[in-house]
Amino acid sequence: MKSLILSISLWLFISPAFAQGAFSSDQIKVNEKRIEKRIFELAEFGINEKGEPYRVAYSMGDLEGRAYFMDLMRKAGLEVHIDYAGNIIGRRAGKDPSKKPIAFGSHIDMVPNGGNYDGTLGSFTALEIIEVLNENKIITDHPLEVIIFQNEEGGLVGSRALTGNLKKEALSQKSASGLTLEEGIRAIGGDPEKLDEVVRKKGDLAAFLEIHIEQSKVLESRGIDVAIVEGIVGIDNWDVTVIGMSNHAGSTPMNDRQDALIAASKLVLTVNEVVNSYAGAQVGNVGKIFVPSGAPNIIPGRVEMSLELRDLSKEKIRNMFLDIEKRAEQIAAETNTEILFENLNLASTPTMASKEIQDKMIQAAESLGISYINMQSGAGHDVQEMGKLGPIGLVFIPSKDGISHNPKEYSSPSEMANGANVMLRTVLLLDKGLSEKIIEIH
Amino acid sequence: MKSLILSISLWLFISPAFAQGAFSSDQIKVNEKRIEKRIFELAEFGINEKGEPYRVAYSMGDLEGRAYFMDLMRKAGLEVHIDYAGNIIGRRAGKDPSKKPIAFGSHIDMVPNGGNYDGTLGSFTALEIIEVLNENKIITDHPLEVIIFQNEEGGLVGSRALTGNLKKEALSQKSASGLTLEEGIRAIGGDPEKLDEVVRKKGDLAAFLEIHIEQSKVLESRGIDVAIVEGIVGIDNWDVTVIGMSNHAGSTPMNDRQDALIAASKLVLTVNEVVNSYAGAQVGNVGKIFVPSGAPNIIPGRVEMSLELRDLSKEKIRNMFLDIEKRAEQIAAETNTEILFENLNLASTPTMASKEIQDKMIQAAESLGISYINMQSGAGHDVQEMGKLGPIGLVFIPSKDGISHNPKEYSSPSEMANGANVMLRTVLLLDKGLSEKIIEIH
Repeated sequence: MKSLILSISLWLFISPAFAQGAFSSDQIKVNEKRIEKRIFELAEFGINEKGEPYRVAYSMGDLEGRAYFMDLMRKAGLEVHIDYAGNIIGRRAGKDPSKKPIAFGSHIDMVPNGGNYDGTLGSFTALEIIEVLNENKIITDHPLEVIIFQNEEGGLVGSRALTGNLKKEALSQKSASGLTLEEGIRAIGGDPEKLDEVVRKKGDLAAFLEIHIEQSKVLESRGIDVAIVEGIVGIDNWDVTVIGMSNHAGSTPMNDRQDALIAASKLVLTVNEVVNSYAGAQVGNVGKIFVPSGAPNIIPGRVEMSLELRDLSKEKIRNMFLDIEKRAEQIAAETNTEILFENLNLASTPTMASKEIQDKMIQAAESLGISYINMQSGAGHDVQEMGKLGPIGLVFIPSKDGISHNPKEYSSPSEMANGANVMLRTVLLLDKGLSEKIIEIH
Repeated sequence: MKSLILSISLWLFISPAFAQGAFSSDQIKVNEKRIEKRIFELAEFGINEKGEPYRVAYSMGDLEGRAYFMDLMRKAGLEVHIDYAGNIIGRRAGKDPSKKPIAFGSHIDMVPNGGNYDGTLGSFTALEIIEVLNENKIITDHPLEVIIFQNEEGGLVGSRALTGNLKKEALSQKSASGLTLEEGIRAIGGDPEKLDEVVRKKGDLAAFLEIHIEQSKVLESRGIDVAIVEGIVGIDNWDVTVIGMSNHAGSTPMNDRQDALIAASKLVLTVNEVVNSYAGAQVGNVGKIFVPSGAPNIIPGRVEMSLELRDLSKEKIRNMFLDIEKRAEQIAAETNTEILFENLNLASTPTMASKEIQDKMIQAAESLGISYINMQSGAGHDVQEMGKLGPIGLVFIPSKDGISHNPKEYSSPSEMANGANVMLRTVLLLDKGLSEKIIEIH
């Protein structure tokens, strides 16, 4: 209650300045040094015995990092709690209690031997937005909510809990830390028995925003400051089996072979050709290939491989697959093999970013003189789960050499600040709601 | 000494008949029922607990099978001994003690869960030749030698011992039975300390002949009775490594990938194209392929694969490899990858069959009304080691569906008899030496 009173008094104090456009783009900006400093501070937690970064979810480094982060959140005046799923939630009241919160955040867990920027950039930018608002004595109309999702790298565990997509059956799965998800949730202060209580309803959030390193080098190579993401791709996966005839590689004439690897090789190239034959940013990958009991002197009788297709359009994924399947029939006929596709039923549907939020992000970038392009996100992020609850937006910044999930991850302070400033400005634009009101600010 | 006297007395008895061409192709033939009967009898030894054939070298089944075989050899009047390498040697004196032996044989060990005909056909044909000569009271000019090589399937172990190619270092290798070669040699009655004493000199054999199932279906599909083998191919092997760049399969645009599996797939197809671009019966195989730490959502950064080339000409193998290597450079450039070839220094040189023995085999087949083609052996056989000691010849017969190393191996009694009759007739033709003398027989 105390913070609500404080919020109202702050509002009364800064309201006239706000109405007169006092926080122009020149004045309200993130502190770029602070973001980097905190990223480096967090990186001190979770170094394993080999000297590698090891802040995997539920590990000691994760627990220490979370404590450090919550301390900063509290110092920034947020009301902090750990929800039953283990997510860290920090709230800042708005002027209008009837409005739904504008939320933003990311994660601070990492893959084993991961980098310092994946997730942490979004987490510290969220905190930075709060601090800059504090420093500029701005109270938004909407409540604000900083969410640090637990175990993003283990499969969006915390964000799936918020949308009700973390099934009971999944709780017994082992995480990278060695603990099961259930044990991990308990370790970080959640309660796996009460996951039902953290599930949010559609419409519970006015918006959710995230900023992340690009995980590729499109921005870097084109010299662009930020990407405004149009959506997070859907993914569909198949196991592919090619069945030929295992035979003696010396005594079987070349024209009498049913070589499953010849067929598989043609299929790998076909996947590439089909994916490239469509306009757009769709991708396809054969990431695994294997000849069971393969040997130099045996003609491959069986090849097992993976197929993954991603795009913003479910239909395009479907059409690409049908093309691949059709051409696989021809390959099978040519090579006297059989090619079988088994859908793994792991498909995630594409999640589109809100058009309105994208527009606000563009306005923000333009007002700040920050160059941008549109892009799709080929990687999954917590924001895609949040898309089930309300409108979402996602910003990418350049990542050196496109590296991620690796200690070599790097983005410069100014690169991070560009993205964080777009995020900050977007929050303010969204807070003012309709476009005509927002334009007045500039 | 006793057998020598017996031989001479036999010779005196049958000599006039022989000179008058009494053993025409109509009269001197193998007993086709007997060969099959004995193959089935031998197959009773070495059934494992799963009910699968398991007469692998040095196993109980192998020991029992060898005892059974040696008993038959002795009953056929052969002087039998086990040499220090564990090979079974059965000798039959000839009329002319100054002549070097004409030898023939094969092996009775099998791969785990192998078939009944691989090796055993050659072994029982060798025995059959002796028995038919006995039944027809024929003593050859040359001494005859039946050799049952030990552990052919483990890498021509017994025949390599005879040529001095079984190195001391190899004796500690484990065989399929679980015993080391050294332990195995002791188990079958050899003495690994005295391997030097079994090494034969070039010229110690007048000829070595072998008959084997084809291990492919060329004869079967063309309806031909036998193949007269021109030579046993040489083999060269490489490990191939393709190095690209491992990356996120969602966020990395298609045109910005260094996908090692795309390059590897092109290389697999190139190997096939290059091998097929030469005239002849050369073969090439990529039998193993592997993406280390491959995953559906990771662009393959490294692919490891095998390359094997076989031909009767060392030069052709070399030229094919140079073509592949040259085209691999183009593939690497196109795909922005690196392709490395490491020669494994396992190359076996091609072994040519004696032209004279091939001619005799053709004469034998023609005189018997048996259809034949020439063929190369893409598989290795003990006869290729014997090629280091003297002139060799190799006959193939049809094998149902080209199956080998499998319980489904099958050749009919008449198919076996066709090949065995060619072998028998070839022994007699060779025994008479020069072509003009042999022609008199018909």
